[in-house]
Amino acid sequence: MINRLCIIGVGLIGGSLARALRAAGYCGEVIGAGRNPNHLRQAVELGVIDRFETDPGLAVAGADMVLVAVPLGAMESVFRSIHGRLAAGAVLTDAGSAKGSVIEAAGRAFGCVPDYFVPGHPIAGTENSGVAASVADLYWNRRVIVTPLENTDPAATSRVRAMWETAGARVSEMEPAHHDAVLAATSHLPHVLAFALVESLARLGDREEIFAYAAGGFRDFTRIASSDPVMWRDICLANGDAIQSMIDRFIDDLRVVDRAVQEGDGERLLEIFTCAKQARDRFAGN
Amino acid sequence: MINRLCIIGVGLIGGSLARALRAAGYCGEVIGAGRNPNHLRQAVELGVIDRFETDPGLAVAGADMVLVAVPLGAMESVFRSIHGRLAAGAVLTDAGSAKGSVIEAAGRAFGCVPDYFVPGHPIAGTENSGVAASVADLYWNRRVIVTPLENTDPAATSRVRAMWETAGARVSEMEPAHHDAVLAATSHLPHVLAFALVESLARLGDREEIFAYAAGGFRDFTRIASSDPVMWRDICLANGDAIQSMIDRFIDDLRVVDRAVQEGDGERLLEIFTCAKQARDRFAGN
Repeated sequence: MINRLCIIGVGLIGGSLARALRAAGYCGEVIGAGRNPNHLRQAVELGVIDRFETDPGLAVAGADMVLVAVPLGAMESVFRSIHGRLAAGAVLTDAGSAKGSVIEAAGRAFGCVPDYFVPGHPIAGTENSGVAASVADLYWNRRVIVTPLENTDPAATSRVRAMWETAGARVSEMEPAHHDAVLAATSHLPHVLAFALVESLARLGDREEIFAYAAGGFRDFTRIASSDPVMWRDICLANGDAIQSMIDRFIDDLRVVDRAVQEGDGERLLEIFTCAKQARDRFAGN
Repeated sequence: MINRLCIIGVGLIGGSLARALRAAGYCGEVIGAGRNPNHLRQAVELGVIDRFETDPGLAVAGADMVLVAVPLGAMESVFRSIHGRLAAGAVLTDAGSAKGSVIEAAGRAFGCVPDYFVPGHPIAGTENSGVAASVADLYWNRRVIVTPLENTDPAATSRVRAMWETAGARVSEMEPAHHDAVLAATSHLPHVLAFALVESLARLGDREEIFAYAAGGFRDFTRIASSDPVMWRDICLANGDAIQSMIDRFIDDLRVVDRAVQEGDGERLLEIFTCAKQARDRFAGN
């Protein structure tokens, strides 16, 4: 149980967690924090939070659980503003899509990474954002990865796990660097490819025509290119090394396909496409 | 009106056209042709065709409209088998995803490209295939591109246009080479990228884990990697030049993103992602 939950960054991710925990009767008061009072007022009207502060340092007062769900680029300044303001025994966690950079930001802001900080990442979301898009079942049957450090208090980790499980998620633990490599492969690289493809096509001369003849497959393939550009800029900056190494690896693999197309090597193409279809079908059947 | 429609290759594409035209009362008898009698029997049971032949040369007898909807790699042999067997006044069209190669195949099979042949391409389909997946409304509000040549009989083109319009499609005309360039950009390249990405990830050491942590965005992005590998091998071989030039262009553009990630150039990343989001949102709003 959480007595007072503080959500810093009341958007899709933070708002959906608040909704889920309230629906489960798992938390008492919910305090929101953020920069935009209009968004926070909307969150109150929607019943997502009870009240709000625009200063995170005030918002965390008396909270026994604090979730920071702001873009990666804003993590450090949020950590700085709550430094020394958390209640005794409070647990701090975050929802950042890259963990190494958030841990470094916490280390810089707090002097060292606090033992009550449990880095976390709920793998959920849509191309929509904002509290208006939040829903109580966003985390239902979704994965959440927590990446506690050696000095993290196991009791804090347990409380974060229990919170996400109450929201319906399946929680796993991972080393931060491993998390960042896995997410670079399954999430960050696909987003980069989708953004790069749409931008590349948008620069073609007959741009309107290009999109006019795109079909359903293109619509699905490029859906993630409608994601928030600021959030994805931050992710690319925060997890740059892992993303860059995945891009390089992908370009090498794409060159193999390119060469097979060039050489008319149907056997090699069929082999690659068949392997992909089998893996995708297995994944989709999960 | 079509008196006798012959569909060679009764799968998703051919089957859906037959269903649409029957539903519209636009055609009399529908004859199917294909290599697999079991599939053809299923098509009869589903009410998609009235009867079938496994020899295309027999199937076209007496038909006034013939659609060839087989994989690109099978076009030439189908054309050879119907050469000299079409009824006087019959119109021939196809549904191949690349037009240059089909036109060349027709030229080789018939000696020259017949004036009653109207190359066509319905831009519709799903990652599913086969006659069981066919539906009467597959072409509703979809694009069909026809690419008549200089010697094509305008009356034949009109009849093909009218047929697709009856199925609910919006029909445009294009030069074959232009069609192949546009489709390389909006369809063939995305499919190559999706296949290449999934195959690349499937070769990572912790393969099961990689896919376990993939989320909804990955599911959408990779849906087209579940497409038929044989069909896509054929497309890559048939439209190789245009596809290769799109892959090369894309790798150049991806290298720009890669460099921005490497240099931590957030401004450039934001610019690229914002342009992509705007173009995607505009496209999705169409």
